[in-house]
Amino acid sequence: MKKINIGIAGFGTVGSGVVRLIKNNQALLSERLGIQIQIKKIADLDIQTDRGIKLQKNLLTTDAYELINDPEIDILVETIGGEQIAKTLILSAMDQGKHVVTANKALLAKHGNVIIEKARDKRVEIAFEASVGGCMPVIKTLRESLAGNKILGINGILNGTCNYILSKISNEGISYDDALSEAQEKGYAEADPALDVNGDDTAHKLSIITALAYGMHIQLDDIYTEGITQITPMDIQFANQFGYCIKLLAITKMVSSINAVEARVHPTMIPYSNMLSNVNDSYNALSIVGDAVGEMVLYGYGAGMMPTASAVVSDIVDIARNLKVSAKDRIPTLAYESRHIRKISVLPMDEIHCRFYFRFTAMDSPGVLSKIAGVLGKHNISIDCVHQKGRKTKQAVPIVMLTHHAKESDVHKALSEIQTLDVVWETPMLIRIEDAH
Amino acid sequence: MKKINIGIAGFGTVGSGVVRLIKNNQALLSERLGIQIQIKKIADLDIQTDRGIKLQKNLLTTDAYELINDPEIDILVETIGGEQIAKTLILSAMDQGKHVVTANKALLAKHGNVIIEKARDKRVEIAFEASVGGCMPVIKTLRESLAGNKILGINGILNGTCNYILSKISNEGISYDDALSEAQEKGYAEADPALDVNGDDTAHKLSIITALAYGMHIQLDDIYTEGITQITPMDIQFANQFGYCIKLLAITKMVSSINAVEARVHPTMIPYSNMLSNVNDSYNALSIVGDAVGEMVLYGYGAGMMPTASAVVSDIVDIARNLKVSAKDRIPTLAYESRHIRKISVLPMDEIHCRFYFRFTAMDSPGVLSKIAGVLGKHNISIDCVHQKGRKTKQAVPIVMLTHHAKESDVHKALSEIQTLDVVWETPMLIRIEDAH
Repeated sequence: MKKINIGIAGFGTVGSGVVRLIKNNQALLSERLGIQIQIKKIADLDIQTDRGIKLQKNLLTTDAYELINDPEIDILVETIGGEQIAKTLILSAMDQGKHVVTANKALLAKHGNVIIEKARDKRVEIAFEASVGGCMPVIKTLRESLAGNKILGINGILNGTCNYILSKISNEGISYDDALSEAQEKGYAEADPALDVNGDDTAHKLSIITALAYGMHIQLDDIYTEGITQITPMDIQFANQFGYCIKLLAITKMVSSINAVEARVHPTMIPYSNMLSNVNDSYNALSIVGDAVGEMVLYGYGAGMMPTASAVVSDIVDIARNLKVSAKDRIPTLAYESRHIRKISVLPMDEIHCRFYFRFTAMDSPGVLSKIAGVLGKHNISIDCVHQKGRKTKQAVPIVMLTHHAKESDVHKALSEIQTLDVVWETPMLIRIEDAH
Repeated sequence: MKKINIGIAGFGTVGSGVVRLIKNNQALLSERLGIQIQIKKIADLDIQTDRGIKLQKNLLTTDAYELINDPEIDILVETIGGEQIAKTLILSAMDQGKHVVTANKALLAKHGNVIIEKARDKRVEIAFEASVGGCMPVIKTLRESLAGNKILGINGILNGTCNYILSKISNEGISYDDALSEAQEKGYAEADPALDVNGDDTAHKLSIITALAYGMHIQLDDIYTEGITQITPMDIQFANQFGYCIKLLAITKMVSSINAVEARVHPTMIPYSNMLSNVNDSYNALSIVGDAVGEMVLYGYGAGMMPTASAVVSDIVDIARNLKVSAKDRIPTLAYESRHIRKISVLPMDEIHCRFYFRFTAMDSPGVLSKIAGVLGKHNISIDCVHQKGRKTKQAVPIVMLTHHAKESDVHKALSEIQTLDVVWETPMLIRIEDAH
C-alpha cells in the first residue's frame, strides 16, 4: 500500500488534535483512502510538555526546517498560527514542492494572494478547510457542491466566542462583561479576546468566503467590521420583543447590477424564523443562498481541538487522494480558474441599505418622539414601529424603533443631528437588521 | 479549452432543471472548471412538450440508446426515475465506458450493488449526490469532509412531503388528510403519495447513507419503516406540551460493541433543543455525529427542480474535474475501498432501546392508571411522566405517558396486554423518542 508522509509544524491545540485524530483513526483512514497517512515529523519549540499522546521520541523536533528539508514529506500541516513565521514556512515548503494544509485564517486573509500565487507557480495545493467554520465543510461546499450556482449571498455565525457571549446575555440577562468572563473560564475566549469580540476574526473568515464565492481578491480593509462589545442586555430584550435575536454576522451579498459585493461584519438582528437564530453557545453556522439551491445551511462546531482537526484531516485526505492518482490542479484554489478571477469592488459601507434598530435615551416629555421622527424623516428614514417604555416625567427613558430600509450614510447623518437635540441623552444605539437574504 | 459532453436521459422535472441550470450558468461553470460542459443529447419519450427552455431541435431524441451509443458522450445523466429501464440504461452506459450521474434513490437502494460493481469493473464513476437530501452535500460530506471521523450516528429529515404535512398539522392543528390535500395542491406531494408518507422514500435514502457511513452493504428489507399516516393533531399537541415536536426521522447508529447498526425510519419525538426541530415545511436536514466533529447539521431543500439539479450538476462537475486531469478511482463509491467493505449486521427492531410516548384511550375511572402501569412494570418499562387529561366519568379520556429507556420487544408485549384490559379502548398509540444522539 502506498503511503503519504506528513509533517506537522505546531504542536499546540490544533496540531495535537490532528496527531490524535490520525493516530486514533489510522485504520479507518487507510480503509477509506487505500493509502496510509503517516506522520513523519512534528515540529514545535516545546517538545517536552506531555500532550497525552504516545509518540516515538524521534518524531519530535524543535526545528521546523527539518520538515521543510525532508524530501520524503509530501504535505506540510501548518498549525503554528501567527503570521510571519507561518508564512515563511509555508512558502519554503512550497518551494520544496510540498503541499500545504493550514487553519490560519489571519494569514490567509492578509497574505493569501502571495501564498496562492506561490502554490500556483509550484503546482502544489494549499488547502484551508479548517480556516473557516471549524468542522463545517465551508470551502468544499463553495468550491464543489455549489459549483453550478451563482452565489447570491452568505450570512455566517463564524466566531464561537462571540456567539457564546451573545447567547449567555440573551438567555440569562447577564452583562457583556460577565458573559465574557464566563467564556474565558470555560476556555472559549482567549485571555485577550480582542480579535474575537472586535469582529476581526470573523472578518478574516469573511474575506476567505467572499473570495471563494465570487472568484475575487478582497482586501481585509474593505470589510466593515464592528464587534459585540457595545451590545447590552437591554438591546437584546428589546430585540426579542420585536421577534428578533442578535448575532454577530458575517454578511456578503452580490449586487450584480453594479458588479460589487457587500462584505461586512457587525451585530445583526435576525428574526426567529431565520435558521441562524437557533444557533446557540459556541456553535457556528453558515447560510448560503444560491440561484439554484435557494438557502442551504451548514451548522457545527466552529472551533475546538477535534472539530478543527477533523477539517485539517479532510484536507490531508483530499490531497492524499489527488496524490494517489497523480491528479494535479483538479480544483482552483479560489474556486475559479486563475485567469477568471474577477475585478469586483466592495460596496462602501455608506452605500449599504438595510433596516435599522435605534435606541435613544431621551427625556420623557411630550414632543420628543416628534422631534426625533422629524430628523429621521428629513434624512429619508421612515419608521416601521416604535416602542416607548415607561412614563417617568423629566427622566431618561429608552425610545426604541425599527426603521424601513434606509441608507447607511443617511442614518449616520440623522443620528448625528439627533444627538445634538437637548432632549436626547447619550449616544444613540444602532443595530442593523437582516430579515432575509 | 477542453469540453465534456453529457447526455441526459429523462427530460422531466429534474432533467429539465439540469438543462436549465447548465444553460443559465454556462459561463460560470467554465470559469470554475476551466472546461466546458456541453449538453450533447437529451432523450425522452415526450420531446414535444415545451419545457420553457430554448434548445436546438437536434438535441432531442426519443431513443435513449442514441446517448449510450454516442462515443463522444462522456457522462450519462439518468433522470428518468423508475427502476428497470433506468437500471438497464445505466449498466449499458457503463459498458460503453461512460460515467453516470443519477438522482434515483429507489434504484440505488434496490440495485445499488450491481451498479456499483459494474462501475468498478469498468472503472467509471457512479455519482448520486442528488439521491439523498436534494441540494445538501450529504454524499460529499460523508465521503470526503468527514473522512477522518468514525460516524457514530445520523438523524435525518429526508422527505419534504412528510415534513410539510407534519409542519402543517403542528402549526395549524389540521388533520393529516387536510394537510396531505394541501401538500398535493402545492405540488409537494404526488397524486399517489404512498412512497412518501409510508416512509419508503426515506428508507431508500437511509440505506444509501448507512452504506456510506459505515462502509457496508445493507438490504432495504432490514430497515424498519413506519410512515406518518397515523399521526394525529392530538399527539402533536401532547408532544408539544412535553417540549417535543414530531418529525419523520431516518435514524442510523453504530452499536460498536456488537458490530451492528441501527437503521430505522419512523415518526420520532425530538426535543425543541434539537436543531432538527426547527426544520419546517418542505425543508430537509441531516444531523451527523462523528467522533471528532461532534454534531454537524446540513439543511436545505431536499427536493424541487433546481435544488435537485444543483446536486446533479455538482456531480457532473466532480466527474469533469477528474476527467480534466485524468484521475481515475479517486474516491471509492461507498466511501471505503471495496476490499474494506465490512460485514455489519442491522440490529433487529425488537432489540432497539429508546424512550417511548404512549397514548391510551381509557375509561376515566379510578384504578385505570394503576392497571396500565402494572402491566408496563411487569415488562420492565418504567414511566418517566404521565399526563391525564380531563375528568369525564365513564367516558374515554386520553392517558399520555413518556417512558424511560425500554426495549422495543418489551413494549410490544406490554401494549398487547394492555389492549386486552377492559378499561382500555382503541389501539394504543406509540411514538419513539430521540433525546440526543
